[in-house]
Parts: sequence; structure tokens; C-alpha cells
Amino acid sequence: MTKDVEVAEQGQGGEYSAKDYNDPPPAPLIDFEELKKWSLYRAVIAEFVATLLFLYITVLTIIGYKHQTDPNVAGTNQCDGVGILGIAWAFGGMIFILVYCTAGISGGHINPAVTFGLFVGQKLSLIRTLLYMIGQCAGAICGAGLAKGFQKSFYNRYGGGANTVSHGYNKGTALGAEIIGTFVLVYTVFSATDPKRNARDSHVPVLAPLPIGFAVFMVHLATIPITGTGINPARSFGPAVIFNNDEAWDDQWIYWVGPFVGAAAAAIYHQHILRAAAIKALGSFRSNA
Amino acid sequence: MTKDVEVAEQGQGGEYSAKDYNDPPPAPLIDFEELKKWSLYRAVIAEFVATLLFLYITVLTIIGYKHQTDPNVAGTNQCDGVGILGIAWAFGGMIFILVYCTAGISGGHINPAVTFGLFVGQKLSLIRTLLYMIGQCAGAICGAGLAKGFQKSFYNRYGGGANTVSHGYNKGTALGAEIIGTFVLVYTVFSATDPKRNARDSHVPVLAPLPIGFAVFMVHLATIPITGTGINPARSFGPAVIFNNDEAWDDQWIYWVGPFVGAAAAAIYHQHILRAAAIKALGSFRSNA
Amino acid sequence: MTKDVEVAEQGQGGEYSAKDYNDPPPAPLIDFEELKKWSLYRAVIAEFVATLLFLYITVLTIIGYKHQTDPNVAGTNQCDGVGILGIAWAFGGMIFILVYCTAGISGGHINPAVTFGLFVGQKLSLIRTLLYMIGQCAGAICGAGLAKGFQKSFYNRYGGGANTVSHGYNKGTALGAEIIGTFVLVYTVFSATDPKRNARDSHVPVLAPLPIGFAVFMVHLATIPITGTGINPARSFGPAVIFNNDEAWDDQWIYWVGPFVGAAAAAIYHQHILRAAAIKALGSFRSNA
Amino acid sequence: MTKDVEVAEQGQGGEYSAKDYNDPPPAPLIDFEELKKWSLYRAVIAEFVATLLFLYITVLTIIGYKHQTDPNVAGTNQCDGVGILGIAWAFGGMIFILVYCTAGISGGHINPAVTFGLFVGQKLSLIRTLLYMIGQCAGAICGAGLAKGFQKSFYNRYGGGANTVSHGYNKGTALGAEIIGTFVLVYTVFSATDPKRNARDSHVPVLAPLPIGFAVFMVHLATIPITGTGINPARSFGPAVIFNNDEAWDDQWIYWVGPFVGAAAAAIYHQHILRAAAIKALGSFRSNA
Repeated sequence: MTKDVEVAEQGQGGEYSAKDYNDPPPAPLIDFEELKKWSLYRAVIAEFVATLLFLYITVLTIIGYKHQTDPNVAGTNQCDGVGILGIAWAFGGMIFILVYCTAGISGGHINPAVTFGLFVGQKLSLIRTLLYMIGQCAGAICGAGLAKGFQKSFYNRYGGGANTVSHGYNKGTALGAEIIGTFVLVYTVFSATDPKRNARDSHVPVLAPLPIGFAVFMVHLATIPITGTGINPARSFGPAVIFNNDEAWDDQWIYWVGPFVGAAAAAIYHQHILRAAAIKALGSFRSNA
Repeated sequence: MTKDVEVAEQGQGGEYSAKDYNDPPPAPLIDFEELKKWSLYRAVIAEFVATLLFLYITVLTIIGYKHQTDPNVAGTNQCDGVGILGIAWAFGGMIFILVYCTAGISGGHINPAVTFGLFVGQKLSLIRTLLYMIGQCAGAICGAGLAKGFQKSFYNRYGGGANTVSHGYNKGTALGAEIIGTFVLVYTVFSATDPKRNARDSHVPVLAPLPIGFAVFMVHLATIPITGTGINPARSFGPAVIFNNDEAWDDQWIYWVGPFVGAAAAAIYHQHILRAAAIKALGSFRSNA
Repeated sequence: MTKDVEVAEQGQGGEYSAKDYNDPPPAPLIDFEELKKWSLYRAVIAEFVATLLFLYITVLTIIGYKHQTDPNVAGTNQCDGVGILGIAWAFGGMIFILVYCTAGISGGHINPAVTFGLFVGQKLSLIRTLLYMIGQCAGAICGAGLAKGFQKSFYNRYGGGANTVSHGYNKGTALGAEIIGTFVLVYTVFSATDPKRNARDSHVPVLAPLPIGFAVFMVHLATIPITGTGINPARSFGPAVIFNNDEAWDDQWIYWVGPFVGAAAAAIYHQHILRAAAIKALGSFRSNA
Repeated sequence: MTKDVEVAEQGQGGEYSAKDYNDPPPAPLIDFEELKKWSLYRAVIAEFVATLLFLYITVLTIIGYKHQTDPNVAGTNQCDGVGILGIAWAFGGMIFILVYCTAGISGGHINPAVTFGLFVGQKLSLIRTLLYMIGQCAGAICGAGLAKGFQKSFYNRYGGGANTVSHGYNKGTALGAEIIGTFVLVYTVFSATDPKRNARDSHVPVLAPLPIGFAVFMVHLATIPITGTGINPARSFGPAVIFNNDEAWDDQWIYWVGPFVGAAAAAIYHQHILRAAAIKALGSFRSNA
């Protein structure tokens, strides 16, 4: 709306009439200046708290559901609890509200794979990337620990919210599921934060946290039966540390390699195909942007 | 908001004070110039990838649900899985996020019926229409193939996500359900992309991908018991190719004829009744637009 | 955003610094001029089509659910179908998309009680009110008829989507439930369309169709066990005509009196308490608007 | 969008180029002038009505669900009713629509803990805080009373919607669950109403009621199995008064202390960490805002 007018004005007076947006310059790999700023530490704190709340709510939801439908507990009912649909909502809905709340502080990643994808897309410096990941993993451990502290026996009996590969699926399949699931999420994140799209379609900046939350919700619907759904190494790491079970540790690498590969693939797809960086450089086609 | 101001300004100085929007000119039937632009191929790639992800997530959701509630599998529970409600969410939610992500690249169709409806409404050239449909069908085949590759035995045992007419319903009813269901979807798409409405109501452009996703969700709630819900020929075609079952092929025509008829009806309803093109031409009434 | 700036500018230069919005003048009771405009008939057609689609989707959802969980049908499962939660989503979600699509054409009522509430609030003329109601009831009859035409035996066996008072609740309670439920809906509609709120809070105009759809969803969660939830006389009337069952006709008055009383109460609450029309007139308080 | 332009303009001509927003001054503790304004009383009435409708819808949803799945009632089905997921939606969805409707009148608290959190953050005077809480508690009593009036025997048989600590959880755990749950909600409220974020990210003001509703939905998914979920002293107090059961009264303090502590913690976290008030005052870091 207003944007269209701005575009028109730039088009009449400016040099680059087709460009109504600014791509920020690529983030430097290492920027020591950043380390002196309070805003970096505030962002890490925000990531820590958000990931803590994310794990706390979602692990409690899983444990509550498993307890309410446990056939060994008197008075329970197979159909009770929020269901797997409710668990998927818990993951997606929490990402929606946490991205909404922290987008302006830290970018609202709450997920080392998202941080890694944005690093691959040169949106973050290496220092910020590492500090975010440390904050997220620490938050995830604390969130899962809090859930265990509430009810130790239930936490241990119902699997502690840890991710493991389901029976009937092999590890290659699980890795593939994590890669494609994270691709869906990180592709949505790139679409939501693209300056070009933000400038053109009013739904892009305004709705942003909602499709990111829905991407998480959707991937849970599809892959809870396969891997329990990680697509977030911090989400898988926190409960593994707190639950500390052999099977959870054996499969742990899948929940790091898969999401990182998927996030990098999404970054490359967005930057080099959809934004056509590579092909523009070759000059073989002319974009009608 | 801002728009109202613009309208007022145009009203004071311009010739057509009541017209605060521009209908783009009808797309030419064939435009060879388009074939030289990278943006066309990028759009086809985006449709291919989006339809691939759509089929991948939704088919996995269906198979996961059927496995988790299979009475022949030890330890399953009738109430387990995401339920038919979860399946309907998977279809609607994926369309929401994929329209959100690809609207700025290709228009975000992810559905040959939507592409056909917009072609009938003269929003797309014939070349673009055909290339989109090829991209969508290829993406759907790959998405279903990926789901089969993950777990071949489950894929085949649980029907492969293919659409067939349910027992108790005849083919005429199924065709009707596909026609009206696609009408609901394509009517929503036309409402969301109408330049006149975009200029007047701020909810129209901003929310756009959400009601389109909800339209898909709603139609699934209503017609999963009848046809399994197609309303998207690519969604029906991909699993038919991969599952390659006689029944799926016998009913396949319903999932092409129904959606195309429904999409054309929605295009005509929107262009000739709601936008009153036909009646304005006759001059028998005067719109108070 | 932009608005705040506009307000500030008006505040500096204008006479009425606190008034950054315009309440439209009350609609005339009878306006024969309106009858000559195509836009009136187009609006009635849009209401007819929208109510038809609303009944079609929701009645099919109810019948599909009842069939899939029918213990007398071989192979069904108590937990199958979309559940009562899915039925509530069907009603709320359809209202969301239909309000989104038709708000710019007819205001997007799809409900004689909403039309009546807006008439009480002097937003509509009497002629428009009556034509809308006729369009809505005709659409509801056709929508329910279409659902019956699809599968006559299922339609009749599973109650045809008709509203009746549940066992265990008396008619006074049912009437109360309809009154308060419609109050919730029409109060949301008035809040969403209030020019003063639209000018101040950017969420009001942009989200508008979503909370209206959610209001319908919420009321269904609460009152499906009591009255099956009407809060929309057309929704109750259409299936009553098509199902044509004594019990549905005996209770029919509840689904007209309740919604009309609730809608009028919401109109009065919004206009005379929240917008303080009555009290401002008395001059006993001074608004700090 | 438009904002960025404004910021740039301020940056060129103004003194404080980095500040594109205004934090309102802290609310005075006691402001007798406020007592003379109709807008205060209107806000209290709006809080009363909104809390009444909130309790009415949610308590009816709980009772309806428990009745429909009661194994002692003939013809019921374990899987019937809206499920615990439906109950969580009822709480979250009602908060969404009520915040949407009343945000412009009273701020849309509908919860004494939210009011208390905003008081701690110096957004409200003491007088307004107390009047809001009285309005909310009175509304909650009336809403629960209305639900009881509809069907007394069901209301009493199914627990009246009162909050009690579940078996298997001790009171310390329940208190912790209430503290963290309310923290999630009030942190979302502060994020949604932060003038700095509102000025920078267009999704913050526009979506505001939706993540607030979702925060309530999420906390219900996680803590219904522990405390039944209060995070709103009025929601716990109303049914306690109407149900008037010893157990509900014994646990009542948890549903006041927990939410108030959580709300205060969220206010302190937002004001002193995220907005960095304390640290800025110390001057030890320089924000790059």
C-alpha cells in the first residue's frame, strides 16, 4: 500500500527504479565490536529464556498426555489427554508466541538449526551464532530439568520428552525426516524475513510468527510417528541430558546432523534459487524483478 | 488507513474519484516474451518444491495416523494418532505456510485447479498455466515418492495417501463434492487477490494466506468421508502414480474434472457476479462502487 | 502507525483534536434509492451463496462424523471422525473464511441475527435487513438440500444437521444459551466494525474476520451439548425445512427468539455502554476519549 | 514500512535519531482525577462483562465435555466431547476474542494477574488496578453462577469448573506451575504492548490478541494435568465461590499467589532485562538500540 507509492516515487526520481528494498550487507564472520554491546547479551538471555519456556511447556504436555492415557493408571481413559494433535499444537503454538515475543530482541530463533541456517545465509556473525546456540542449549537443559523437578517419577516413566527413532523406521529414514522437516521450517523463516518480500507483500512482515509456528506444527503432525520430531537440536539435547538414557544418546547425532543439513539446504535454496543470486551473477538470465 | 488518504487525494485531483485501485489488464493467452525471463522458471521451481513438500508432509501424516491406530499392530490404541482432524489440519496448514512463502514468487498456487481458475479469470497466460501444472504434478509425484521411500511397507499397507471414493457414495456425489469443495477454495483465492478489495479492506491483503489455508482445512473436514478430499489434481495424481493401484486410477478422472469445473465456476462467479463485469457491460444497473 | 501521525496533525491544526474517526450517520429505516442499485442485489446474492456454502460444509461435517463413529456400521471406530472439536472448527472456520471473502461485498453477515443486530444498531436499512434475511434463509435451505441430495439415507439417519434441545436441558436453559451465545458473536462483530476502534488499534480492522470466526467456534464448544448451537436462525431453519422432523420444528422458535434477543442486547451494550451514547447525551460524565 | 521512513526523517532532522517511539510516563500510584472520568467506569464494566463471558463459555465447555464422556451416563462414548484439547481451545480462544474486543476499552486484561503485572510495570494506577480486579472477580462469579443456573445437577456433579491440584502432584509443584504459566502469559502481554516493539515490527501491534490467546492455550495444554490451570485468579475464584467445595477453597491460595508472583516476575524480566532499564541506569553497557 504505502509502499507502492514509495516505489513509484523512487521509480520516478531514483536510479534503480525496480529496487524498493534493501538487502542488508552480509554479516561479517567475526565482529569483535559486537561483543561490547549489551544488545548481544540481551539477545542471548532472551534466547535462553525462550528455549527454557519452550521445553518446559512442551515436555510437560507430553508427560501429561502420557500419564492421562496410561492404561496402568486407574481411572484413565484411552481417549483422554490432549492427544498427539495437542502435542503438535504445543510445539507449534509455543514457537508462534516465542517468535512473536523475541523477534525484536534476538530475531526469535529458539532453535540452533534456525541460527545455523541464518549463519549460512550470512545473516549472523559466527560469534553471535555460537553464543545463541549455547544459550539455546542451556535453556533447553533448564526447561527439561524444571519439568523433571516438578514430577520426577512421571518424568522418568514417560520417557522425559526425549527424541528417539520409532520402531519400524531405520536411522537413514529418521535422518531424512529431520532434514526435510527442518527444510520446511527454515525455508519458512527465510521467506518471512526476506527484505524483498517484506517490501512487496503486506502479509509477509505482519503474519511472520504465525507461519513459522505452523511450520513447526505441520512437521510434528507428519514426523512424530517417525522420530518424535526434533528439527531443533536444542529441543533434542535438553531432554537427552536430563533423561540421560542410552537410547536417547545413541540417536542424538541424528537430531543434530539432520537439522543442520536441512537448514543449510533451505538457506541455499532461498538465497541461490529464489533470490537467484548465483544465476544473476552468471548473467545468463535477466530477472524481471 | 493510509489508503483512505490516498483515495481522498485522488478524489480531489483525479478524473475517476471512485476508483482507488487498478485491475491489471487481462493476461495474454500466449506471451513468448515471458519465456525469456528467469522469473518464470523460478516460479515453476517454487511450485515444484512447494507441491513436493505439501505431498510429503500430508502423505506422511495420513500414513502415520493409520499406523498408529491400526488394530493389527501390537500396542496401538484406537484413539492414538493425530486423528482425522489432524489430517485436515495438515492439508490446510501446509497450504497456509506454502502460500505465505511462495505468494511473492509464483503466486502460491500449489494446485492445478487454482492455476486453472486464475487462467479462466485471465490472470495467467496459457504458457505459465501449463508450466505451473507440470511443475505441480512433478512435485506431487516426487513428494509421494519420498514418503514411499521412507517406509515402503507402511506406504503400501495404508493406501499411500491416494484418493478414492468411499463406500456408500456414488461417483456423481463424489464429483459434486469435488466441484463444490474446489469452488470454496478458488472463491477464497479470488477474494484474497482482488485488487479492489485489497485497496479497501486492510484485512484482505494482510491475512490472505490464512483463509486460503482454512478453506482447504474446512473442505477436508466435510469431504474426507466422501472422497478423501482432492480439490487439487496434483495431490490426487502424485499418490496415484506412486501407489499405482487400480481403484485409485479408476476414480482419478473425478479428481481432475471436479476441481477444474469448480475452479471455473468460482472464477465466473467472482468475475461476473461479484465484480459485475457482465452486468456493467449490459448497462442495466449502475454500480455504486 | 500512520494513523498516530494523522491524529497528531489533526490535533495541532484541527478543531476536534480528539476525534480521529467518523461514525457514519445512522442508516435510514427505508431508503428506496438503495433498491435501484446493483450493489444491493449483489450483496444479497453474496449472502445467499455464502450461507449455502456454510450449511453445505457444516452439515456434511456433522453427517460424516456421525457415520464414521456409528457403532452399527461395520469397521467404524469410536474415536474416528473429526470429533465434536472438528465440528466446532467447521462452523467457526467457515464463518472466518466467508466473512473474509464477503465483508467487502455485503458486510459478511451470513446470519440473520448478525443482520438484525446491525439493524438495531442503525447500521442497515430495513429493506436491506429483510432482503439479507431472505437471502440467508434461502441459501441455508439450498445448502442443507445439497447435503441431503448427496446421500439421502445418511442425511436422514444422522439427524440432518437440525438443531434440537438436548435431553437433560429444559427450553428456558436452551433459550438462555442461545441468547448469551449470540451476544458473544454479535458483540465481537460490533467490536470489529467500530470506526473508533478501527482508527486507534491496528489489530481491529486487520484481524477482523478471525475473532468473528473464533467467536462462533467458542460458542460451539460450549453449547453443542445443550442446543447443538444455533446462534444463527438461518443455520437452524435450513436443516429444519429439509429434515422436516417434528422435534426440529417444535424447538425452532428458540433458535429465532434467542439469537434475535442476544443480538439486540449486544447492539445495545456496544452502542449505549461501550460507546457511551446514552450517558454522553445525559451529560453527567465527560469521556476522555 | 511507513515507520522506517518516519524514522529516517526523524534521524535527519531530529535530536534523538535512534528513538522512533515514546514510552508513556509511568502511571501515578494514585490519581484522583481518573475517578471523575466515565472511561474508567466503562473500562471496569467491560472487564466485568468480558470475565463473565469468559467463565460462562469455559465452564460450560468443561461441564459439557465431562457429561458427554461420563461412563455412568447411557449412550456416552469415551471419545465423545471436545476433549481436553477442546477445553484448552475454549480458554485460549475466549482470551483471544475478548482481548480483541476490549483492548481499546480497558486494555483487555480479563485477569487480575495481568492487571497486577501491568501495575508492577507502572502501566496502571493503584485505583484502576483495584477496580479492575473487583470487576473481574465479580464477573467471574456471575459467569460461573450462570453456568450453574443452566444445569445445577450437572454443574455440581462435574466439579463446577473449580481448580484443584491433581492427585500425584504436591502443592509446591502446583505453585511452580502457576508461577511459570502466568510468566508465559504476562511476558507475552508485555511483548505485545511494548511501544518500542510496536514501532519497529509491524507484526507486534497487528497480531497482538492472537499470541496472548495462544499463550493461554499453550499453558492449558501443559498444566491442565497438574493444576487444572488457573493463571488467572478470577477464573479460579468465581467457580470456587459458586461451587463452594472445601477442596477448592483449600487450594485457592495457590491460584492467587502463583499468578501474582509469575506476573511480577514477567514484569521485572521485561522492564529490567529486555528493556534494560536497570542496566542502562548503571551505565555499564551501551545499548545499540
